[in-house]
Amino acid sequence: MSHNTFGHLFRVTTFGESHGPALGCVVDGCPPRIPLTEADIQAELDRRRPGQSRFTTQRREPDQVKILSGVFEDDRTGGPVTTGTPIALLIENVDQRSKDYGEIRDKYRPGHADFTYDAKYGVRDYRGGGRSSARETAARVAAGAIARKVVPGLTVRGALVQMGPHKIDRSRWNWNEIANNPFFCPDAEAAAFYETYLDEIRKSGSSVGAVIEVVAENVPVGLGAPVYGKLDADLAAALMSINAVKGVEIGAGFASAELTGEDNADEIRAGNDGAPVFLSNNAGGILGGISTGQPVVARFAVKPTSSILTPRRSVDREGHDVDVMTKGRHDPCVGIRAVPVGEAMVACVIADHFLRHRAQVG
Amino acid sequence: MSHNTFGHLFRVTTFGESHGPALGCVVDGCPPRIPLTEADIQAELDRRRPGQSRFTTQRREPDQVKILSGVFEDDRTGGPVTTGTPIALLIENVDQRSKDYGEIRDKYRPGHADFTYDAKYGVRDYRGGGRSSARETAARVAAGAIARKVVPGLTVRGALVQMGPHKIDRSRWNWNEIANNPFFCPDAEAAAFYETYLDEIRKSGSSVGAVIEVVAENVPVGLGAPVYGKLDADLAAALMSINAVKGVEIGAGFASAELTGEDNADEIRAGNDGAPVFLSNNAGGILGGISTGQPVVARFAVKPTSSILTPRRSVDREGHDVDVMTKGRHDPCVGIRAVPVGEAMVACVIADHFLRHRAQVG
Amino acid sequence: MSHNTFGHLFRVTTFGESHGPALGCVVDGCPPRIPLTEADIQAELDRRRPGQSRFTTQRREPDQVKILSGVFEDDRTGGPVTTGTPIALLIENVDQRSKDYGEIRDKYRPGHADFTYDAKYGVRDYRGGGRSSARETAARVAAGAIARKVVPGLTVRGALVQMGPHKIDRSRWNWNEIANNPFFCPDAEAAAFYETYLDEIRKSGSSVGAVIEVVAENVPVGLGAPVYGKLDADLAAALMSINAVKGVEIGAGFASAELTGEDNADEIRAGNDGAPVFLSNNAGGILGGISTGQPVVARFAVKPTSSILTPRRSVDREGHDVDVMTKGRHDPCVGIRAVPVGEAMVACVIADHFLRHRAQVG
Amino acid sequence: MSHNTFGHLFRVTTFGESHGPALGCVVDGCPPRIPLTEADIQAELDRRRPGQSRFTTQRREPDQVKILSGVFEDDRTGGPVTTGTPIALLIENVDQRSKDYGEIRDKYRPGHADFTYDAKYGVRDYRGGGRSSARETAARVAAGAIARKVVPGLTVRGALVQMGPHKIDRSRWNWNEIANNPFFCPDAEAAAFYETYLDEIRKSGSSVGAVIEVVAENVPVGLGAPVYGKLDADLAAALMSINAVKGVEIGAGFASAELTGEDNADEIRAGNDGAPVFLSNNAGGILGGISTGQPVVARFAVKPTSSILTPRRSVDREGHDVDVMTKGRHDPCVGIRAVPVGEAMVACVIADHFLRHRAQVG
Repeated sequence: MSHNTFGHLFRVTTFGESHGPALGCVVDGCPPRIPLTEADIQAELDRRRPGQSRFTTQRREPDQVKILSGVFEDDRTGGPVTTGTPIALLIENVDQRSKDYGEIRDKYRPGHADFTYDAKYGVRDYRGGGRSSARETAARVAAGAIARKVVPGLTVRGALVQMGPHKIDRSRWNWNEIANNPFFCPDAEAAAFYETYLDEIRKSGSSVGAVIEVVAENVPVGLGAPVYGKLDADLAAALMSINAVKGVEIGAGFASAELTGEDNADEIRAGNDGAPVFLSNNAGGILGGISTGQPVVARFAVKPTSSILTPRRSVDREGHDVDVMTKGRHDPCVGIRAVPVGEAMVACVIADHFLRHRAQVG
Repeated sequence: MSHNTFGHLFRVTTFGESHGPALGCVVDGCPPRIPLTEADIQAELDRRRPGQSRFTTQRREPDQVKILSGVFEDDRTGGPVTTGTPIALLIENVDQRSKDYGEIRDKYRPGHADFTYDAKYGVRDYRGGGRSSARETAARVAAGAIARKVVPGLTVRGALVQMGPHKIDRSRWNWNEIANNPFFCPDAEAAAFYETYLDEIRKSGSSVGAVIEVVAENVPVGLGAPVYGKLDADLAAALMSINAVKGVEIGAGFASAELTGEDNADEIRAGNDGAPVFLSNNAGGILGGISTGQPVVARFAVKPTSSILTPRRSVDREGHDVDVMTKGRHDPCVGIRAVPVGEAMVACVIADHFLRHRAQVG
Repeated sequence: MSHNTFGHLFRVTTFGESHGPALGCVVDGCPPRIPLTEADIQAELDRRRPGQSRFTTQRREPDQVKILSGVFEDDRTGGPVTTGTPIALLIENVDQRSKDYGEIRDKYRPGHADFTYDAKYGVRDYRGGGRSSARETAARVAAGAIARKVVPGLTVRGALVQMGPHKIDRSRWNWNEIANNPFFCPDAEAAAFYETYLDEIRKSGSSVGAVIEVVAENVPVGLGAPVYGKLDADLAAALMSINAVKGVEIGAGFASAELTGEDNADEIRAGNDGAPVFLSNNAGGILGGISTGQPVVARFAVKPTSSILTPRRSVDREGHDVDVMTKGRHDPCVGIRAVPVGEAMVACVIADHFLRHRAQVG
Repeated sequence: MSHNTFGHLFRVTTFGESHGPALGCVVDGCPPRIPLTEADIQAELDRRRPGQSRFTTQRREPDQVKILSGVFEDDRTGGPVTTGTPIALLIENVDQRSKDYGEIRDKYRPGHADFTYDAKYGVRDYRGGGRSSARETAARVAAGAIARKVVPGLTVRGALVQMGPHKIDRSRWNWNEIANNPFFCPDAEAAAFYETYLDEIRKSGSSVGAVIEVVAENVPVGLGAPVYGKLDADLAAALMSINAVKGVEIGAGFASAELTGEDNADEIRAGNDGAPVFLSNNAGGILGGISTGQPVVARFAVKPTSSILTPRRSVDREGHDVDVMTKGRHDPCVGIRAVPVGEAMVACVIADHFLRHRAQVG
């Protein structure tokens, strides 16, 4: 994880600002001969795309991806496959709605990166948040679509498990519900409630946070490079790097602090094939930084969108007190669109560790 | 963060197993001409050392550090200073109590890394947990002692803010109390309660988790390399890499998910010197991955020690069902000794980003 | 240097194949507020562009660069400056002449990477050499144009000092001649000779190698990260990574092996300002891996273009003996166009070490 | 390659100064279950050890290596094997002969790194060259001993092929002669000549350079990560990072510049098993940055030892003109002891790429 690149062997470098001509990424280190089309990537991008319901920003971006390199026809199958060379993906920005940026050009919006970017770099593209915009996450989702194909059998799915203070009822968890509501919510009843709840938030010009859970299944045993490249350490960095994320936990997470040793450690029995079967999964599929073969479970907290209609106290670049009110198109709960982004980051980390493990252990 | 190295410019590589001849680290990239003695490092190591109260493992390790390289007399001051070359630190293991390891040699202790190390590598040093032992964290603390000196004025302090389900009362927070109890607890009343509570846990052969908070003050504005080297992303990885940690949060953390945009975003006013003054710190000192100049606040959850006296169900290397009971010396709350470790990791991350920022921005 | 990225802090990631839709690069870690326009980059690209004389490939590529990100108007000057975020550069491929690739699709051209790419990846874009084409170096030159602006006062110039067995006369070295001949040759007489010589080579369908020298002036004292990030070690890797390069030397280079200690070590006297003045530069401006302040002098050998008209013995993908003759557009001396590429690589390495040095030493 | 670490997956971090308490390295990323003893490493160190003939420095160092971590008994074989965790190696300095360093403490020895270290860091351990001493290379040789075991069947051998202006006769090349003379020279007649020649150099207090050739056999086809992690690019960096090296070449190297395309490109025929057989090896076993399966051949030039008895002009730290004459123990041809060092670096690079290749391609 350095500047705009993450991953050690499955390396993703992203670029682009919210209102520049384009954004995209270069995926380096991908194994060769993996079937890959633009449609594969587009399918994931479409899940993250804004403007699909009234609960996400009304910016209309087709987010159409182009593969610029790294894919060529396979002489055996004739179909397009990765070649082992860098895969460059490009997404052009289309809906950079012309707008008066005078309001935010010189004022620091509370909760946003306006002040810190200015303090660090002395210059910034203020249009739509520039580099710190959530639009950057489209590149992550595109990269994640490739990562998913690197590990045989891997599935990575995300779900919104809490909106504001309202948690889902985990006993009603049904992965099939995810596609049935605009919140990626696995609990149909909670989703119905969220619809009313978020409408109110939206109409009042306010916003609210969320908690997202990502579950990766069919993760091979043994992934993770202790002690600083632990699988959970890399997951934590990857998820914390998503815009607006303020917390990450694995398995029982913060709740494990409340448990006793008896309750927390997952007991084991021999399975039919002699392989260990864990009787619970407080570990979230990771022990000592290495995957156990159980589902890898990560959760992250997304703060409420800082762009709200209520004026907030702030300062401008010249150091004068000002009030800031953010007009325009915004997500009342930016956590919703973080679901496919979280999935993508988890997929990339697992793909990276899959390659790292194969390198060291064969 | 890759295998056994972390940091991009202030790079720490650690080595060593619990019961091998020695452990230690190499700190590379440290700026030159920083005064440094073994005593500076020893002072930090002594805070982490086991056997200082009945609440930490009774293993008796002096944890005496030796500087093997990278320090030489300054021709101006005559005192020892860093030379800009790698600083190697060595800590010899002394109390490798002779013991029958038959019990754990072939059995996988639930909650430990026994199974995953074996599954990954096909071989492991099972004595005292080998590489996955918390003894490795001594090297982190040693490195952290150097990191603290890299950033002028920086202070990094940690505190235990929750033991089991029992949180401290933050209104009673007093940093001076930290040194007055064996828990690094800033709330004297809570500390008194923990003493009784943990004695009970300890006597019953059980264990309990904890939450640790680390606060870094005088962090310069502008540290952090968006978007994948964000300061919070690197903190998350660094803290999650500590043994037994299952969750990390920054500022309001998971609680921010429950807030509205109005309540979460920290408002700003101009200070007397024109510099922005934040009216709250839900952000934990980081916006858009870049430090704001406010205190950087990170919190992490430590699971209960998995070594307990109650027999737990497991399997052995041959795939037979067995029961495992961990005898011997253990911490009833491994979170306590994680406090100086957490401080060290935060100090290292900030030192690294201090150098990275200086590189890019001058 | 890892896969398709080089540089530690000034990081360049390139992508693209010879006959794909586009090639380009992402430059990450560039300091902010450096004035930068497409024209700045285009000027360097134009020096490398093919088809400018009969001595370079007749492929007609405008090599028009687009800046996709990382540059924005400066609020103080109004002009475009770097923002500290990744700078993505795109060059579309235009002249992918339609052609029958049957000849090289299945045959391994001797001296080319055809066999090794196939052996490594099991698939490759065979059109025009795919990823192993010298077209990739356009992205290097583009990145180098930015690197040149990172180090104040830095100048990096390259010259062809040998073609085939024919060396220039160094006593006639005149940097101004570089622009007066199609060879980047600083010796006008040698250039005149090369014109006749290379015409003959070209007409016979043969090719010939070359030696290129790159000189960097105004390199600050102190750059280089001993002992594995030595300035010369990174220069060696950077130059050796250029297509067709088979040797790299610094200062006196291989000739230093023939010298005695008396003749080789550059003597020093105090200059008027007390700073050391070296009386010779066998060291090529680098001692112990660190720049001395003298000009940094690197030289590299470029093998003859492997694409020639004379049939050569080889095998095809099925393992049958075949003869291969490379028709089409080629450089009779690929070393010529390596001059701006070598400059770019040297500039990038120095920019990287400028930032690394500033990080550690301030 | 960054500061004091090299390698991407097989990572070596070295530390230590010439006259400090100890030097050593940490080897991270080594595959598990490779048999490894101290004797394995010692055997390589003994080949590099000073004081074995009158042609190398008379410093008497046993260079006894200790394994501090990363090796444990294998439960299947009972013998010591790598565990996949970091292998720390320690070599204590013994013969730090007490000496008056007044002479070199403040004077910059021409050809040495004295001035540049001081200019960069403002402080340095001047005793015996400190970090820039060739003693550091003992750690490389130790790491190389491990690297050799990573790639099945790999052999890496080095030879001195030129001393001063005197080249060996390659038609007399006999690997068995290497062990029969103190020069690692494969040509017995040349070795006999060198003995007289170097005695003269030595007695006159002078020194002379050398060229070393390293040949790696049984390198699997396909190693190398184009385009910046090319096998030859990494070899170039690794060899150039050795003390006193000023040039590196692969295969025909600089001589390839003099060849035509017809003569340079190695022709291919199908072997009995259908696999390509190269009819020559001008490529030095590498095409497009990827190994061909032929022997990898690298050559590097070592400058003459800068420590000589003849006084040379220089300056001191205060900027006064001085004369410097280096008394004490020195190598008249430091290139001799560079042979095992070069082998070690080549072995490490190949081991690293072996793992990198396995990661990407399986």
